[in-house]
Amino acid sequence: MGVVFDGRLAFGGDYNPEQWDPAVWAEDDALMRQAGVNLATVGVFSWALLEPEEGHYAFDWLDAQLDRLHANGVSVDLATPTASPPPWFTLAHPEAMPVTPDGTRLTHGSRDTYCLAAPAYRRAAAAIASALAARYAGHPAVALWHVHNEYATVCHCEQAAAAFRQWLRERHGSLDALNQAWGTAFWSQRYGSWEQVQPPRATQWHHNPGHTLDYRRFWSDLALTAYREQRDAIRAHSDRPVSTNLMLPGYQTLDLWKFGREVDFVGIDHYPDAPGADAHADIAFGADRARSFGGGKPWLLIEQGTSTVYRPGLTLPREPGDILRSSLGHIARGSDGALFFQWRQSRAGAEMWHSAMVPHAGSDTRIFRETAATGAALARLGELAGSRVEPPRVALLWDADAWWALDSAGMPSSGLDYLGTVRRAHRALWDAGVAVAFAHPEDDLSGYRAVLAPSLYLVSDDGADSLRRYVRGGGTLLAQYFSGVVDARHQVRTGGHPGALREPLGIRVEEHRPLPPDLEVALSDGSSGTVWSEDLRAEGADVLASYGGGGDGCGGGDGAGSLTGKPAVTRHRFGAGSGWYVSTRLDDAGYAALLGRVLAAAGVGPVLPGQPAGVDAVRRRKGELSWLFLFNHGPGEVWLRSVAAGVELLTGAAVPATGLRLGAGGVAVVREGGVSA
Amino acid sequence: MGVVFDGRLAFGGDYNPEQWDPAVWAEDDALMRQAGVNLATVGVFSWALLEPEEGHYAFDWLDAQLDRLHANGVSVDLATPTASPPPWFTLAHPEAMPVTPDGTRLTHGSRDTYCLAAPAYRRAAAAIASALAARYAGHPAVALWHVHNEYATVCHCEQAAAAFRQWLRERHGSLDALNQAWGTAFWSQRYGSWEQVQPPRATQWHHNPGHTLDYRRFWSDLALTAYREQRDAIRAHSDRPVSTNLMLPGYQTLDLWKFGREVDFVGIDHYPDAPGADAHADIAFGADRARSFGGGKPWLLIEQGTSTVYRPGLTLPREPGDILRSSLGHIARGSDGALFFQWRQSRAGAEMWHSAMVPHAGSDTRIFRETAATGAALARLGELAGSRVEPPRVALLWDADAWWALDSAGMPSSGLDYLGTVRRAHRALWDAGVAVAFAHPEDDLSGYRAVLAPSLYLVSDDGADSLRRYVRGGGTLLAQYFSGVVDARHQVRTGGHPGALREPLGIRVEEHRPLPPDLEVALSDGSSGTVWSEDLRAEGADVLASYGGGGDGCGGGDGAGSLTGKPAVTRHRFGAGSGWYVSTRLDDAGYAALLGRVLAAAGVGPVLPGQPAGVDAVRRRKGELSWLFLFNHGPGEVWLRSVAAGVELLTGAAVPATGLRLGAGGVAVVREGGVSA
Amino acid sequence: MGVVFDGRLAFGGDYNPEQWDPAVWAEDDALMRQAGVNLATVGVFSWALLEPEEGHYAFDWLDAQLDRLHANGVSVDLATPTASPPPWFTLAHPEAMPVTPDGTRLTHGSRDTYCLAAPAYRRAAAAIASALAARYAGHPAVALWHVHNEYATVCHCEQAAAAFRQWLRERHGSLDALNQAWGTAFWSQRYGSWEQVQPPRATQWHHNPGHTLDYRRFWSDLALTAYREQRDAIRAHSDRPVSTNLMLPGYQTLDLWKFGREVDFVGIDHYPDAPGADAHADIAFGADRARSFGGGKPWLLIEQGTSTVYRPGLTLPREPGDILRSSLGHIARGSDGALFFQWRQSRAGAEMWHSAMVPHAGSDTRIFRETAATGAALARLGELAGSRVEPPRVALLWDADAWWALDSAGMPSSGLDYLGTVRRAHRALWDAGVAVAFAHPEDDLSGYRAVLAPSLYLVSDDGADSLRRYVRGGGTLLAQYFSGVVDARHQVRTGGHPGALREPLGIRVEEHRPLPPDLEVALSDGSSGTVWSEDLRAEGADVLASYGGGGDGCGGGDGAGSLTGKPAVTRHRFGAGSGWYVSTRLDDAGYAALLGRVLAAAGVGPVLPGQPAGVDAVRRRKGELSWLFLFNHGPGEVWLRSVAAGVELLTGAAVPATGLRLGAGGVAVVREGGVSA
Repeated sequence: MGVVFDGRLAFGGDYNPEQWDPAVWAEDDALMRQAGVNLATVGVFSWALLEPEEGHYAFDWLDAQLDRLHANGVSVDLATPTASPPPWFTLAHPEAMPVTPDGTRLTHGSRDTYCLAAPAYRRAAAAIASALAARYAGHPAVALWHVHNEYATVCHCEQAAAAFRQWLRERHGSLDALNQAWGTAFWSQRYGSWEQVQPPRATQWHHNPGHTLDYRRFWSDLALTAYREQRDAIRAHSDRPVSTNLMLPGYQTLDLWKFGREVDFVGIDHYPDAPGADAHADIAFGADRARSFGGGKPWLLIEQGTSTVYRPGLTLPREPGDILRSSLGHIARGSDGALFFQWRQSRAGAEMWHSAMVPHAGSDTRIFRETAATGAALARLGELAGSRVEPPRVALLWDADAWWALDSAGMPSSGLDYLGTVRRAHRALWDAGVAVAFAHPEDDLSGYRAVLAPSLYLVSDDGADSLRRYVRGGGTLLAQYFSGVVDARHQVRTGGHPGALREPLGIRVEEHRPLPPDLEVALSDGSSGTVWSEDLRAEGADVLASYGGGGDGCGGGDGAGSLTGKPAVTRHRFGAGSGWYVSTRLDDAGYAALLGRVLAAAGVGPVLPGQPAGVDAVRRRKGELSWLFLFNHGPGEVWLRSVAAGVELLTGAAVPATGLRLGAGGVAVVREGGVSA
Repeated sequence: MGVVFDGRLAFGGDYNPEQWDPAVWAEDDALMRQAGVNLATVGVFSWALLEPEEGHYAFDWLDAQLDRLHANGVSVDLATPTASPPPWFTLAHPEAMPVTPDGTRLTHGSRDTYCLAAPAYRRAAAAIASALAARYAGHPAVALWHVHNEYATVCHCEQAAAAFRQWLRERHGSLDALNQAWGTAFWSQRYGSWEQVQPPRATQWHHNPGHTLDYRRFWSDLALTAYREQRDAIRAHSDRPVSTNLMLPGYQTLDLWKFGREVDFVGIDHYPDAPGADAHADIAFGADRARSFGGGKPWLLIEQGTSTVYRPGLTLPREPGDILRSSLGHIARGSDGALFFQWRQSRAGAEMWHSAMVPHAGSDTRIFRETAATGAALARLGELAGSRVEPPRVALLWDADAWWALDSAGMPSSGLDYLGTVRRAHRALWDAGVAVAFAHPEDDLSGYRAVLAPSLYLVSDDGADSLRRYVRGGGTLLAQYFSGVVDARHQVRTGGHPGALREPLGIRVEEHRPLPPDLEVALSDGSSGTVWSEDLRAEGADVLASYGGGGDGCGGGDGAGSLTGKPAVTRHRFGAGSGWYVSTRLDDAGYAALLGRVLAAAGVGPVLPGQPAGVDAVRRRKGELSWLFLFNHGPGEVWLRSVAAGVELLTGAAVPATGLRLGAGGVAVVREGGVSA
Repeated sequence: MGVVFDGRLAFGGDYNPEQWDPAVWAEDDALMRQAGVNLATVGVFSWALLEPEEGHYAFDWLDAQLDRLHANGVSVDLATPTASPPPWFTLAHPEAMPVTPDGTRLTHGSRDTYCLAAPAYRRAAAAIASALAARYAGHPAVALWHVHNEYATVCHCEQAAAAFRQWLRERHGSLDALNQAWGTAFWSQRYGSWEQVQPPRATQWHHNPGHTLDYRRFWSDLALTAYREQRDAIRAHSDRPVSTNLMLPGYQTLDLWKFGREVDFVGIDHYPDAPGADAHADIAFGADRARSFGGGKPWLLIEQGTSTVYRPGLTLPREPGDILRSSLGHIARGSDGALFFQWRQSRAGAEMWHSAMVPHAGSDTRIFRETAATGAALARLGELAGSRVEPPRVALLWDADAWWALDSAGMPSSGLDYLGTVRRAHRALWDAGVAVAFAHPEDDLSGYRAVLAPSLYLVSDDGADSLRRYVRGGGTLLAQYFSGVVDARHQVRTGGHPGALREPLGIRVEEHRPLPPDLEVALSDGSSGTVWSEDLRAEGADVLASYGGGGDGCGGGDGAGSLTGKPAVTRHRFGAGSGWYVSTRLDDAGYAALLGRVLAAAGVGPVLPGQPAGVDAVRRRKGELSWLFLFNHGPGEVWLRSVAAGVELLTGAAVPATGLRLGAGGVAVVREGGVSA
């Protein structure tokens, strides 16, 4: 199933005509045609307009907008506006406003002021979703449904407490089991009745880490329940695909594997946090995740920015050509189009400085011209619709439970960073030109030649079985420091780390030895480590590198001295496969070298034979057809000799058998083999 | 009108005898005579003493203090004590305590615990002001009235909400107009009834920037209303001048232009935040503002410190001579005296380490000796009373709306800093020896040869008209980056920046391109920029400097590359005048050079021909008489040859026609031309 | 009295068998025997288990545990579990949960959620303490009682307010006296009734520093009252020693001199915050304090970690040998044993990553092996039980009032740091090998040859008398900057600083001149100062060093220039003694040199004649016997020639008259003189 259209990629963005006068609408129509817009996300922030008083809907305005868009050839991803309850909702249902851990009840004035556990909110959300679906299911403009917006608000109110207790009953079965799972014997936390259990509210010291982990799981499940309610209300009226826009990858609220199972297609919002090549690596990271979470379903980039990169307290501009490069960066990795937030830059409101397709300065601008050029480019790539990315041979493990657990208070080092460690692994693969998919530890991993487990702190028993089975069956696993340490309850697997992985890795870690921020320890192979080290013993594994680079052997209290001569990097033959382990955070060159060794051993190479540094290459396929996306993120022209003959679709030029030349910043989409689409 | 006395400058400070025993009072009398104190601010913190129980006044103590001071030849600036409600007030009127945005209700224990919107507070404040005025209007010691103290407390309670709604009704007329002004269509914030409108309380994400801007305007107006109530209660009994002590310049709560119109004279408190020459530049900044806000009214320095400079977490000492230099720094720029907080350093309480005229160590100290010497010096300058500073030819624009708007959440760069940018412009003028006045954009600017608009982000329509008229009429305007961008509602002027100033500046900015903290971009004229850059097109303007210093032209994602060759600094002939624009934050030398060019073009030079670096010169005039204040803030002696013959008043020495020699740290006040005062 | 046993040192730790299955208990028994454990702290976190519902005790489990431990030869330090009320307590007594200054009421979910002023809490705590004592007073395993755990929680609720008012009535006698003491005339804070007095809750600006100081005193006294209630409840049933585990030294809640008077022995928890030699210096600091606070009573290290050092956000590993070295570090300075938190590392809960005697990896680990070796070593030192540390000749003053006062808001410099300044003084003495005791300023100091007063900001009148008497009587006092400044009410002693010490020091400080963070001022003797300087005049004292190193003399606003030539370090002959003063924070070398001069003048040297750098030596005595503890914290072997002949107890080897060789990291315990124990 192509997500939106047959024979087309989606192009467009959030469209909020309620902010503008009719005169602007007329200009919008013309500019949308000029830019090749074919899909608009409508209604995300329209609750106050569509339901100006509780229970009184006013759809005339939306009728007219949909008719106008349809007449202009623009389809609609129709949103339920439930992420932004209007001010009247606060006054009618004060108990449905979110409460912080210290008991502050938030109020309206921005957006996302609701508690997902509040019955009043859930009723109101389902009602307007149902009313919208009933009215617009048959509207010819409506191509997709967009439930809510960026589920992220967490609440600690009494209604959340009640829902949490119910969730805990279902998960643990009994209070005794809950007490066992959380280890409430420590610090005298034993719960004597369900009523005593609360959200992790403000308390004197650290929270119980089993408690906080379960609260995160509960909230993700609650959001999924809220999503399903709206989805089902829509499905009662419409057969168009339903999804929601997930925030990637820094948002920690949701278990995206679970959402991937419930959406008709995966939708993501993606905003890089750095300019230049870093932005493109980040896009690859987000896009590989989006594709993976769907498990084969189509996916769509629902929001990106045209011209800025967001850092805390700073928006940095992006460079000429980035609108096209970024859009194709997502499409190369499977997105069936590229949408933006938003069509026209707001004159007012909290996001008046958020970039847009039509900036404040209007259409006579570089930004709009590049936007329109991107729309034209995507129109030339319509044949891609319905194709899929060629399955990677390398998997990177991702488990929200591991992230949530490692983000607890009281961990041995704040230098541990699950997301950062996974991103670093992905970046190293991207730099090496190697295609990668994300996988969950409990997945069947047998299709991958290599599997990377960066700081997979928590591994369930099933996950441990899966990884053992994978290696024994011939797989190549590279596990990184502080992996396999706790079980699904967030309890340490005693007897030696990494408890869940000791067997396939053939090692035993006696003691974790975090390193202070300014310390770098030398390894015997010339590389070095920071952040972390471990006192480990090989129990069957070969030692590939050990601590102590040839320098001093005296301790000096820095945590490194006493490890001198002990194993730092190991490899274990286990069954038909091998388990590699690295017990410190290697420097960039050392990490790349180790990864190169692992990949070579697994027989995995870059997408393009001889792929030069700075070049990103991804292949999509549909039946017999294949398309190769090529990006040159490096500073100079490259000659890609191993590109097959074919047709470059953006220019329509033939690609000869001698390969393709690509200038700095250049991008090409080659239909390989000369076969017609 | 001289503020206080004919033929004298005011000298003295806050006097809090309630902290001391009668034995100390006797010493105070002697030391005040010794120091030449002629004015004491009394009663600022005396509410608990004067009204020990609600409605029961006890004035005997104050009667005696005023009599004593009067007998000692000291006049009184009598304060209403309303900034520090006593503990009984909290218990009687808990609803009048201030509430933070997250709902925490503060309590007594320090000072300023009141909500200006609380009827109970306003009644109690007006009542004691009225009672004081009724009792002391005829007291011969009372020369001035000092309403309240440093209006700064902001509240978010329900009473504030009610007052805010009323203010909004008056400003916007209708709810529709309010929804339009704030752009509430975004994020579904449309208000369906006035009751839904609240102060900007804790919410999930950014507040609406129109909302927060209006709340700041409202609060400033509320403070002004509270001031007027007390002022009018006093005027019902007394004809002595009434004012309040405004905090300058970092306090953001008040629109000081509006206060300037309602006070009988402008009073300021001024505490530099750096020692050395920076302190004196800061004093010039504060004093130029104080003089300007009054629009021709007299002004008075009500508080300064004798011996310390306040930084966060640190008070730094000041150098020998600074008490005199600082006092004259204010007087040179128009203050009719110099007062201090406070007379005697407190032994206890929250400000026990605040400096004073009589320090903890007593009168046998450098600090008291310098204080007394300053009193003696001011006594020699009595003829200055009633004189006015010679009107500057350069105006620096200041608009609280622009400050408040630029201080919103969600701006493109936290490196934007309205106050800092204005201070930098003032400092550059001070370094160049050029006299400057502050002006509001909507003022008639035709009297100024040059007008500077540093980061004047918000410009009202009237302000835009005013600036256009100014340039067309022959003025020289230098506008700096991110000026003229939004209107008075905080809505972007679309079509190209700087919307309000495009015509007089002859430019069009397509895109703002903030720079990361560590990036410096080179300009073609050898200068460089940081913080900010813009993609601008000259539409009539000449290009004076462009981006790209001769270095590389490749982007690299740093936001500078793609501007290479584009205009950075421009000048536009418009009508009879010219509009200059600089689109980045120039380095110090580059900024000084540009300013030099602008001032030269406008025909403006330093106060003193050939004024050396490090010398500050200001002239006051009264009728035919003129006085030249000269400060040498540099490290060595200077010979000021262009000083006219006259008399140096501090020493009584004649100044010959060959000029004046001034040692490092020296200060002189020359009555010019030898005319007798 | 030996604390625990005759002829043995205590060895063991917190034992929380409720976290583990019976199978683990069996292993515990075996491993405890292997490790030589003879004392276990039981029940600290067992409230929920022992009183599963309010008023229903369930002691069977504890009966069995004590029986088992006893059967295994392990005595018990039986804890009252009152630091961790169970969840049922929150629901039954919500008013007993602690409230933050801004009014947030905390809830259960970690530990220490109680208000010491809440009657419901105090009743519940006394009840369970009494029930435990009644049941176990006669149990043969119970050797000691451990009341509560680390008193640290502070509350600001209404019950705390009521208790505070009562405490204030007792301290001040009348409201007038309170108003006088706090200086409430400032900022109009005069209290008209007791009901108006509150805890220092959230307010608009700084709190009154007399108010916050009294609240800290009140809270410490309240904790002591709560301790005494439990202690007395236990004493009603048992004659075994009762104590509590005090947190040292960074916890600011308690006045430990007062606790020292009420406990039967001093118990401390000690966790260094740096690895290497810094940890051992920190251990010496904590141990010298623990010994001193008891004023001659025995003391015991109740908690330490085996293998980690805690920094914010980071636990660093410790080096091989540190378990023994640290344990002996405490015992050398008087501890009658070494206990750990905890026996077995938790699999779950907030402290799952806290180190333990049996780590996650089990008993086949370096950590357990070193733990067992330490147990064996302590068994060899049983003869030490009942001995006392040889009394030092140098005292370091410590006064919680001074700490609390200097920690107020509004101090002249955040670079002032009472604890840090005292630690630095202790460290300099430790580096010099000089034994030191802590003393209170009001103590009889005549037994000390030298007394150090580092930044003793607050000195009571009695303390001032005591110090004057000490110097006049022949003592050597070294006072450091910003000492003697305020009285016990936190009111400045006017007339010149350091008011309380001007007479013995023979100086008068006119003005404090804090230095900016980046400024170092040179002194005439080649040393330099940072953080602080003072404008002081010698009034009888000799000037040992003055400001200005020979560099420039111009001010430049840096606060140093104007002091050039003025005294920086002074010495005053006063009566039969001398008062030294240093008015800045000397650099390390300069401070060591000054200290060396002071100690030489006082006739004090290191414990061991010719003691090399890096060596720590401490002597314990009992009757005729003496034992010398020797630690080599330096990088290489040392030959300690002045060690007397004797027997090294850890090895049993004879020490010849030629002295002892000690390798890097080595430790020895020499029974001196060959006398048998």
